[in-house]
Amino acid sequence: MDTKSSKNILAAFKKQGARIETKARVKLSGKKDFSLWYTPGVGVASLHLAAHPEDARKMSVKKNSVAVISDGSAVLGLGNIGPYGALPVMEGKALIFKAKANVDAWPIVLDTQDPEEIIRVVKAIAPSFGGINLEDIAAPNCFEVEKRLVEELTIPVMHDDQHGTAIVVLAGLLNAAKVVKKNFKNLKIVISGAGAAGTAVAKLLLAAGATDIIVLDRAGTLHTDREDLNVYKKELAMITNPRMITGGLAEAIEKADVFIGVSGKGVLKAEHVASMAPRSIVFAMANPDPEILPDEAKKAGAEVVATGRSDFPNQINNALVFPGIFRGALDKGVSKITEETKLRAARALATLVAKPTAVKIIPDLLDARVVKAVAKAVR
Amino acid sequence: MDTKSSKNILAAFKKQGARIETKARVKLSGKKDFSLWYTPGVGVASLHLAAHPEDARKMSVKKNSVAVISDGSAVLGLGNIGPYGALPVMEGKALIFKAKANVDAWPIVLDTQDPEEIIRVVKAIAPSFGGINLEDIAAPNCFEVEKRLVEELTIPVMHDDQHGTAIVVLAGLLNAAKVVKKNFKNLKIVISGAGAAGTAVAKLLLAAGATDIIVLDRAGTLHTDREDLNVYKKELAMITNPRMITGGLAEAIEKADVFIGVSGKGVLKAEHVASMAPRSIVFAMANPDPEILPDEAKKAGAEVVATGRSDFPNQINNALVFPGIFRGALDKGVSKITEETKLRAARALATLVAKPTAVKIIPDLLDARVVKAVAKAVR
Repeated sequence: MDTKSSKNILAAFKKQGARIETKARVKLSGKKDFSLWYTPGVGVASLHLAAHPEDARKMSVKKNSVAVISDGSAVLGLGNIGPYGALPVMEGKALIFKAKANVDAWPIVLDTQDPEEIIRVVKAIAPSFGGINLEDIAAPNCFEVEKRLVEELTIPVMHDDQHGTAIVVLAGLLNAAKVVKKNFKNLKIVISGAGAAGTAVAKLLLAAGATDIIVLDRAGTLHTDREDLNVYKKELAMITNPRMITGGLAEAIEKADVFIGVSGKGVLKAEHVASMAPRSIVFAMANPDPEILPDEAKKAGAEVVATGRSDFPNQINNALVFPGIFRGALDKGVSKITEETKLRAARALATLVAKPTAVKIIPDLLDARVVKAVAKAVR
Repeated sequence: MDTKSSKNILAAFKKQGARIETKARVKLSGKKDFSLWYTPGVGVASLHLAAHPEDARKMSVKKNSVAVISDGSAVLGLGNIGPYGALPVMEGKALIFKAKANVDAWPIVLDTQDPEEIIRVVKAIAPSFGGINLEDIAAPNCFEVEKRLVEELTIPVMHDDQHGTAIVVLAGLLNAAKVVKKNFKNLKIVISGAGAAGTAVAKLLLAAGATDIIVLDRAGTLHTDREDLNVYKKELAMITNPRMITGGLAEAIEKADVFIGVSGKGVLKAEHVASMAPRSIVFAMANPDPEILPDEAKKAGAEVVATGRSDFPNQINNALVFPGIFRGALDKGVSKITEETKLRAARALATLVAKPTAVKIIPDLLDARVVKAVAKAVR
């Protein structure tokens, strides 16, 4: 982004102030209103919920609210920029939650990056919320934080960088495979990035039937002979890379059908794309600068190219997923977002594109059918 | 409250669901909107706030937001009914914050009652908020929790049960003294209840110039010879009860000018009131059932009677205070609510009643001037 655009954007945020606010859903115009909705009336609701906490989902903010929570340890492509750096993103997600799915989300950024502390804090504040959207928490902490919260809370918890990304990637890839006329299960898939997104994408693609996935971190392909892997990457190495490819991206991508980038700017070179199988698919999703620019990827031979950006075709964006997932979970009182739900959501998203083409593999962010279709997939 | 009213109220809450929601303050109708307010535009705001966290007060929800936080340990007059019991009250306060003062407040009830844990959780979530309204946390924990948070956070923190109550009581008492034509500084004042509210009321009345206050807990008057007092009550005993009255309410209230009840239903008997000095003042603020009913107090000789209820004259209610306090603090970027602020707020409230009478010592909850006057007192 050039300096002038940045200055204009900053000026717009400063002029705007907050991008969301609260709104009263009842009138407080007379004494009667105060007596009903505040004291003494509220005492009746309090006594009821003390005895029947499960009814908070029916008669309080818990009915329709989601906390959008981050520790600021992995914000967009910007890295560990702390809670204040994370705040505009979380507020933006809260805005999208309301605008797209009428979910009342509130941004909560945390002044801690210790996973045990994050778990403790989220558990402590959970009673007021109907769902927890974790966001921009770095791997590997994000795995433990999400796992424990899913186990220990009775409201839905989803780390969007993992599962939102995985769902939208799977949706796009199902349609891209159709465009290039290849069987999804036989695709040779390379994933660049073994963090939160890469890990979840690999697992969901496997669950959807993919059989040949190679994941790379900065040191090269994940495989079971590597001794420098943490427990999460070790697990990933055990379920991926069936041909035990060693080396780096050049080795992994040779004759691959699909490249999925959740890594960084410029990671994918033209010669890499040129070495892929015919009719290749490139999802270059690093934000704001993709692993390769679409034009370059196409020139090097890719048939279907997608990015995370709104100024190119095929925008693979989590915003297609998270509003619908929580809309569905809140409406149906669902307490866990299962693997089955994620697969159904991806298929539902894919199905919205009636005739996929190289420049249209995924519905548009502005497509009003998206939230409904994803919400319907949650059971 | 009779069973039929309770049933109707419960039905209304169930039908209503949430009483507050979020609202978008910007449009998200086209791709341009997404590019500006979400990705990639939001990255500019994030990088800026990472470098200049102080600007979160200008360009995020922090500008206008307050967390209304409770552990549910002392909810209204209902006692320790936990986070779900507290939720309707906190949501009601969030509703009043918006309706009265355009403050974006979100209710957060905590699944812990450990003071160290409460401090830890509130500190962790503080970056997203412009202020912290603590509520319905039992004494003595509330004292330590508030003290530490005031010290350790750079946003205003106020325990409303303490200071909201103290401010509105002082306002009412300044006017009540005028009605009975007594000098405020010479009033003999009895406070029934040595919890959060009683302690703060005693301290603020002293700061306002009162010289003769006796505070009672369930065991009787606080005085320096008692050996069963915790550190907070001991401190209170040292600054009150100059005549070293021992015994119970009967002993304390003899010839007193003022009774302030923040204790429980029926604590004050007609014979107690009859033993007070001529032209006495009774604030019976236990909720929903006061220490004595207004009619009974008047019959026994009280000249000015106030309660916490909206169905009697002179409603002494915190809702006259907290919206304006935080409105003022947010507008002026004030990070501490000082004793001086509380005194100014009380005087400002009192002044709104041009000619105090026995049935009009405090402005009405519906009086639109209240928030502005209190906010103006915050500097």
